[in-house]
Amino acid sequence: MQQTTSAMIVVGDEILSGRTRDSNMHHLAGLLTAKGIPLREVRVVADAPAAIVAAVRALSPAHGHVFTSGGIGPTHDDRTADAVAEAMGAPIDVREDARALLQAHYDRQGIAMNEARLRMARIPEGAVLIDNPVSAAPGFSLGNVHVMAGVPKIFAAMCEGLLPRLTGGAPILSESVPAERGEGDVAALLAGLQDAHPALDFGSYPFQRPDGRYGTNLVIRGTDAAALARARAELEAALAALP
Amino acid sequence: MQQTTSAMIVVGDEILSGRTRDSNMHHLAGLLTAKGIPLREVRVVADAPAAIVAAVRALSPAHGHVFTSGGIGPTHDDRTADAVAEAMGAPIDVREDARALLQAHYDRQGIAMNEARLRMARIPEGAVLIDNPVSAAPGFSLGNVHVMAGVPKIFAAMCEGLLPRLTGGAPILSESVPAERGEGDVAALLAGLQDAHPALDFGSYPFQRPDGRYGTNLVIRGTDAAALARARAELEAALAALP
Repeated sequence: MQQTTSAMIVVGDEILSGRTRDSNMHHLAGLLTAKGIPLREVRVVADAPAAIVAAVRALSPAHGHVFTSGGIGPTHDDRTADAVAEAMGAPIDVREDARALLQAHYDRQGIAMNEARLRMARIPEGAVLIDNPVSAAPGFSLGNVHVMAGVPKIFAAMCEGLLPRLTGGAPILSESVPAERGEGDVAALLAGLQDAHPALDFGSYPFQRPDGRYGTNLVIRGTDAAALARARAELEAALAALP
Repeated sequence: MQQTTSAMIVVGDEILSGRTRDSNMHHLAGLLTAKGIPLREVRVVADAPAAIVAAVRALSPAHGHVFTSGGIGPTHDDRTADAVAEAMGAPIDVREDARALLQAHYDRQGIAMNEARLRMARIPEGAVLIDNPVSAAPGFSLGNVHVMAGVPKIFAAMCEGLLPRLTGGAPILSESVPAERGEGDVAALLAGLQDAHPALDFGSYPFQRPDGRYGTNLVIRGTDAAALARARAELEAALAALP
């Protein structure tokens, strides 16, 4: 059975200018790994309709799911909803269910609805809303594209509502073995283990401790816990046998 | 005169799995903004030759510069150098100048050269080396593609060597005006200012303070300091006039 893969589109000039350090990608990556829907590619694009449309058209047919973050607020530079609708060929307008959610939220807060806030009720035809328990303005799923907010607290809350709706695969497990050796010392044994266990992924990540000691974290990833445990034992034995 | 734009490719399963939070994108974004070579797109791809080749082929013709991070170490999952060579149609093999740099480094440290370490001397024909003052293994520039290490300390050191070689444009300046108003309150005036100043970019970023107060950071970006100052004054006047 083929695994369902996913991709993410981060929309935001503030990320590309270096003003803001993105955190949604890291958050979503961890959730998807646990859910068994591996994240295969992320594109960070500008607040520009053409860039968003191109990314959606490239990624939506290639993956089981595409998640977007950012660009669904009330201001002129929030263009994700319209761009996703265009990319997917869906009409978009203010939708009554989304408008009602916003109106109820603003009524509770004593805030007036206005034209800008109403833009956040623009939802493509056929989309399913994603709940926003923080500030009401919903995200949406249109086909396999899931459109969420960029503010990290709201993005995380939307993920919590969305992910249980998606069918996951076997969670991707990992074993991490720290070695007090350089990558160049462990490269050959690691390549040998990779060849012997094609269903697992072996990675190596050099580190340097604050005291100056350096080494390599060896990471094995896969969905079969027993195979992972066997590979870990082989790796530890091979490390112990290094000259 | 058209502005030189850039793109970045972050190579790494460890980012996509959520194991590691990338920091090189944020670091490079800030440097490029100051240098006047705006970063327009970032792609995070797996340690897979086909994914790297596709990203290079898409981005290299579309931008003045492409920067890559990750995948140039000694292990089997380090595939960036060969993939970039393939994408750009350049032959690649161990190059004597790179081998000599590594050999001298290992001699100083009393470390033996081996086949894995020698992989880090694989440099495409015609590439210019990028200095690595941390651990010797060089990056390289091939055409407009600049290949650097993934370890943040080494990536930063390589950027320091590389960026002075590139011709920058006018630095992108910004003015940030915090407003104790929701985005929905400032959207209309911001859209009006954007229309009146097409050479500047107006963005809005909601925030919430630890004490619960919320508001919006209004950011104006552009290369003309006088125009920025005028727009800031107009923005402040418009904010003060809000009901």
